[in-house]
Amino acid sequence: MITFKEAYQKVLDHPLDLGIENVPLLNSLNRILAEDIYADRDFPPFDRATKDGIAIQFSDLANNRHAFKIEGVAAAGVVQQVLKDKSNCLEVMTGAVVPNHCDTVVMYEHLTIEDGAVTITKNVTKGQNIHYQGSDEKKGTLLLSKRKKISPAEIGVMATVGKAMVMVKGNPKICTVATGNELVEVDEIPKPHQIRKSNMLTIESALLNSKIEAGSLHLLDDKKEIERELEKALQDNDVLLLSGGVSKGKFDFIPEVMESLGVKKVFHRVLQRPGKPFWFGIHPKLKTVIFSFPGNPVSTFANYHLYFLPWLQTSWGISIDKLYIKLSTAITISLPLTRFIQVNTEEKEGVLWATPVMENGSGDLTSLAKSDGFICLEPRNKEYEVGEVVSFVKTR
Amino acid sequence: MITFKEAYQKVLDHPLDLGIENVPLLNSLNRILAEDIYADRDFPPFDRATKDGIAIQFSDLANNRHAFKIEGVAAAGVVQQVLKDKSNCLEVMTGAVVPNHCDTVVMYEHLTIEDGAVTITKNVTKGQNIHYQGSDEKKGTLLLSKRKKISPAEIGVMATVGKAMVMVKGNPKICTVATGNELVEVDEIPKPHQIRKSNMLTIESALLNSKIEAGSLHLLDDKKEIERELEKALQDNDVLLLSGGVSKGKFDFIPEVMESLGVKKVFHRVLQRPGKPFWFGIHPKLKTVIFSFPGNPVSTFANYHLYFLPWLQTSWGISIDKLYIKLSTAITISLPLTRFIQVNTEEKEGVLWATPVMENGSGDLTSLAKSDGFICLEPRNKEYEVGEVVSFVKTR
Repeated sequence: MITFKEAYQKVLDHPLDLGIENVPLLNSLNRILAEDIYADRDFPPFDRATKDGIAIQFSDLANNRHAFKIEGVAAAGVVQQVLKDKSNCLEVMTGAVVPNHCDTVVMYEHLTIEDGAVTITKNVTKGQNIHYQGSDEKKGTLLLSKRKKISPAEIGVMATVGKAMVMVKGNPKICTVATGNELVEVDEIPKPHQIRKSNMLTIESALLNSKIEAGSLHLLDDKKEIERELEKALQDNDVLLLSGGVSKGKFDFIPEVMESLGVKKVFHRVLQRPGKPFWFGIHPKLKTVIFSFPGNPVSTFANYHLYFLPWLQTSWGISIDKLYIKLSTAITISLPLTRFIQVNTEEKEGVLWATPVMENGSGDLTSLAKSDGFICLEPRNKEYEVGEVVSFVKTR
Repeated sequence: MITFKEAYQKVLDHPLDLGIENVPLLNSLNRILAEDIYADRDFPPFDRATKDGIAIQFSDLANNRHAFKIEGVAAAGVVQQVLKDKSNCLEVMTGAVVPNHCDTVVMYEHLTIEDGAVTITKNVTKGQNIHYQGSDEKKGTLLLSKRKKISPAEIGVMATVGKAMVMVKGNPKICTVATGNELVEVDEIPKPHQIRKSNMLTIESALLNSKIEAGSLHLLDDKKEIERELEKALQDNDVLLLSGGVSKGKFDFIPEVMESLGVKKVFHRVLQRPGKPFWFGIHPKLKTVIFSFPGNPVSTFANYHLYFLPWLQTSWGISIDKLYIKLSTAITISLPLTRFIQVNTEEKEGVLWATPVMENGSGDLTSLAKSDGFICLEPRNKEYEVGEVVSFVKTR
């Protein structure tokens, strides 16, 4: 058996090149940007009025004139206006191009207007209320770098530079595989010795949070069927995520069948709890990557977050999420296994605290709905103390 | 003008009853649960073997017998087996019902098997390796309470109890409304005095993160058109989110048109920066709620998070996200306005730190892609100090 650290590294040593995809702008939300985005023009593209009011030439104001005749209106969305007589003014609207021969904008709140003539009632600074061309970004500036996760703010930036279609990192084609004769569909009434499928629906929904729509498969404990179905699944997918069938049981055919289908076992069983009977392999020819998780719901859920998500982030070429949290309870780890303990989290005055969730072993599915993630504790002689900072894997 | 605190309260005082919706299980991901979920049977539903190995009657082992004849196999997914001769054993697989007349499971790793007879090589504890019926949850127990946000863990729990369809809180029907003649579509090449629409795409994508697909509308600066389009939009939607058209400009017809269409202004303009010219109203008859944000991208983005999201959470009947963060830089707020300052966040050893982002005013769209959210600072004489805990609104 290998340590968690070794197993984790071996998984990361087998990334896939997931390629890139060209998608409509709104579909790129929460995907990983695969191209650099540059300013296609200055930001803003012209000297832009930031207030509704009048545009004037400051030098004229400095000559002690405080009443201006209104020549016309410069609205947003029309070509640049020109102030003909520099001792006059033009009304100007937010978002409009500051008129030619004007260098200062005074907002309506600081004006009185009577008979088409404007009097300024407050002190004016030269150049005020103008958002200058190129003052945010110059044309050609790198605005967004590839490998960034696309949030609504990035959507806005890309809209402005005209990216109606965006290059994003590709998603792996994934099939989730449930195994075991005891499983029935969610909409069935299970017999006393049966249970409904839940593990792989949990994983399918977790994948949706990474914007991946996975296929699904249910294998009965029949070696021939498993062989036939897995052969096809290995060919049709980039990644298989399995649950169950990798323990020492008589019907745990998965490792044997995988090998007969040309899959190379990278490791099986890890010094960790939960999730010990984890089997990981690759198909050297087809390039399929296989994560075969233990059948217990807590084990599958933990290993999905501990191994699969970092693998996915590595395959996308982005950095792996690493979080830390403070312990609100002292914990002792006696067995020589890396422990993943379900916790509730609480943010108190900018500090994140973790409190272990009472649970009843790795079969306790309902405990997952009570926790926010797992803390990761390596075995050591010294107790983990209250307030100690430990590694944290978020699951909601 | 009213304070931010007053404006915030007035918005929350106008929630909508968004009703409930029945959706397929996987579609309920990230929605708000609108029903209580109970255990439909015990969890687990039977005494379940947690290891592959043999099932025995412990009392027989206690009689100093350590070799057992194998009577047969109890697989997962078959009806409960019966151990006929209590001095024998049955092989048992993980997930199987523990056979009748057995009370203890010994895993293969602790056995040697020769000629159909098993010898146990390790100490055995009565009842070991059995996940007892009802030990996680009893039938009828409340597993998930309504108003919980549905994450993958909740999907798993609901799958197990057979919820193929789930009741979730309804979403408001929303239309985003961009205003202004200067705006062109993302896939167009703007003329020098034009800019591409971006504000409302930012908001549309932010809504997608709340699983809301909004409609969109672009109004030109034409009072008749605005009247006609808004009248229809007020009838067809629960919520309108507008950007622009609420300043003091000549073409800022929105407040006037709204009133002529029977909309009641709740307030206009708030003592805050950015986002001061925010207009909020309701249509008492149609029950439409109108958030009319200023046209600047930072203002719209800030007000969406500061007002709309808490309003949405209140309408769903769930608690409002409240986060706090520590300042990495001292900040002085001199003007009598509530300030929202864009920050980068960094988690260091379980503590969240905020560092202000350099920006160029509320028109600086690109600054949004550099920040993780806004810190909220009320004006006060004393400087905000390094390490001080302040309110934080996350935007990615």
